Amino acid sequence: MRIASYVAGGRASFGLVVGDGIVDCGKRLPFADISAVLAAGGLPRLADLAGTAPDLALAEVTLLPAVPSPLRKVLCVGLNYRAHVAESAGREVPEQPRIFARLADSIIPHGAPLVRPRNSIQFDYEGELAVVIGRAGRHIPAARALEHVAAYTIFNDGSVRDYQKHSVTAGKNFPWTGPLGPWLVTADEIPDPAALTLETRVNGERRQRTGTGDMILSVAALIEYISGFTPLSPGDVIATGTPEGVAHARKPPPWLRPGDVVEVEVSGIGVLRNPVIAEEDAA
Amino acid sequence: MRIASYVAGGRASFGLVVGDGIVDCGKRLPFADISAVLAAGGLPRLADLAGTAPDLALAEVTLLPAVPSPLRKVLCVGLNYRAHVAESAGREVPEQPRIFARLADSIIPHGAPLVRPRNSIQFDYEGELAVVIGRAGRHIPAARALEHVAAYTIFNDGSVRDYQKHSVTAGKNFPWTGPLGPWLVTADEIPDPAALTLETRVNGERRQRTGTGDMILSVAALIEYISGFTPLSPGDVIATGTPEGVAHARKPPPWLRPGDVVEVEVSGIGVLRNPVIAEEDAA
Repeated sequence: MRIASYVAGGRASFGLVVGDGIVDCGKRLPFADISAVLAAGGLPRLADLAGTAPDLALAEVTLLPAVPSPLRKVLCVGLNYRAHVAESAGREVPEQPRIFARLADSIIPHGAPLVRPRNSIQFDYEGELAVVIGRAGRHIPAARALEHVAAYTIFNDGSVRDYQKHSVTAGKNFPWTGPLGPWLVTADEIPDPAALTLETRVNGERRQRTGTGDMILSVAALIEYISGFTPLSPGDVIATGTPEGVAHARKPPPWLRPGDVVEVEVSGIGVLRNPVIAEEDAA
Repeated sequence: MRIASYVAGGRASFGLVVGDGIVDCGKRLPFADISAVLAAGGLPRLADLAGTAPDLALAEVTLLPAVPSPLRKVLCVGLNYRAHVAESAGREVPEQPRIFARLADSIIPHGAPLVRPRNSIQFDYEGELAVVIGRAGRHIPAARALEHVAAYTIFNDGSVRDYQKHSVTAGKNFPWTGPLGPWLVTADEIPDPAALTLETRVNGERRQRTGTGDMILSVAALIEYISGFTPLSPGDVIATGTPEGVAHARKPPPWLRPGDVVEVEVSGIGVLRNPVIAEEDAA
């Protein structure tokens, strides 16, 4: 199932994406949002609606982040592809993952503008596979970790590189820099998250391309590590790191500029597309 | 004013601490919690209740974190006292602050147990002055930053040092490792946050002592920097860093152990006291 969260007619809802239409599940089921569905183990009730005629055209809704607010935990891993480690100024491959947290107000939906802040021009893309937790856990062994995954989606870990040199938290948390979407694809459709292809394009030009099997730590290993220091709950998001090809490793760096359009595509999930604007021009 | 958030008789509320009593403001005012008071600019309405006879004894309530859940942003700064930088394995004084985020489920109230996780014995204390935002802002200049502060409180930035070597986010986010409290003291009572004395004790033995004027970046400078990358809102918390004297810099390190009691005292605010238990013994 593809599950979108969206606003239509002034009302927030969630529904099944079927072709270019949406089956409004929010009006048919007693859940406030998709996180509540996950918390209640309610995905089978969405599946029961799969044959329903679409209520809306996808084109007429405003998408929300694939996991909408309130978004409790977005945990990201840096340096999880060897070629990206190599391009990142001579870093060694870390023995343990480098985790950082994204604040909820940095997360935006498919289609919303990536905002280049007024205090930096070093604005960069990072295409990533994102994992959405469906079942709570702490100290989850890797062998059972995928049982805790409800769905996958795409993340663009928009980064402000000069601030990232101060601290990863500063560089990764400017508002409106983290697109998450366009929708969730449930885990039954992605039996092996290491068998996907990820590609990032800027204005149609390919900048990153990898198989997700090139991750240093697999999705299961990341869940084991992260759940060792923090409890995971339904709706929590883990972004699995970006491959080589980011702007800061290119000479001269092709920083994102207002007017650019960034697309991150993951096979079996879709395309996450966002235009870039300047903070000065943001509403 | 001293403002505590607490549970009494199964009901969450907030109130003025007057001597060893509490004036229940939650039942008298139309605000759900102290963050809602701050968001509405409602502190004067609490002040109007200052002469009311206490409803409860402080000893009979269960305190909540000084800013209770939902806690949107807890942003912390590492390496903000020179002597602590020096004791931290030869680090240079950073030109910009090192910021990291605390997840809400790591934050606990005064009196609650600090939980040493089962996957580490390197459990450390860090006494800190914490700032609570009262007025929203982005790109706040230092000269006006203190106008955005509603109150101060105390933070113990409980740290798991081996995980912190992996990433600061991992080492600082184990559940039940971040006491915040015991209460808020409004900014009118602390005209100069650089004029306070901070002391950390373990089982009554002094481990840290500093004047807050020894911070590398002042409270105002921290607010300027942080609001440059993320919007600040009423109820957001900034922890201002710890001075020298942490366990990991001592030989051999006196790691926190089950049965220990940690106290952080800041002049003009109070004492934040928490016992240590092992995760294996947690409920």
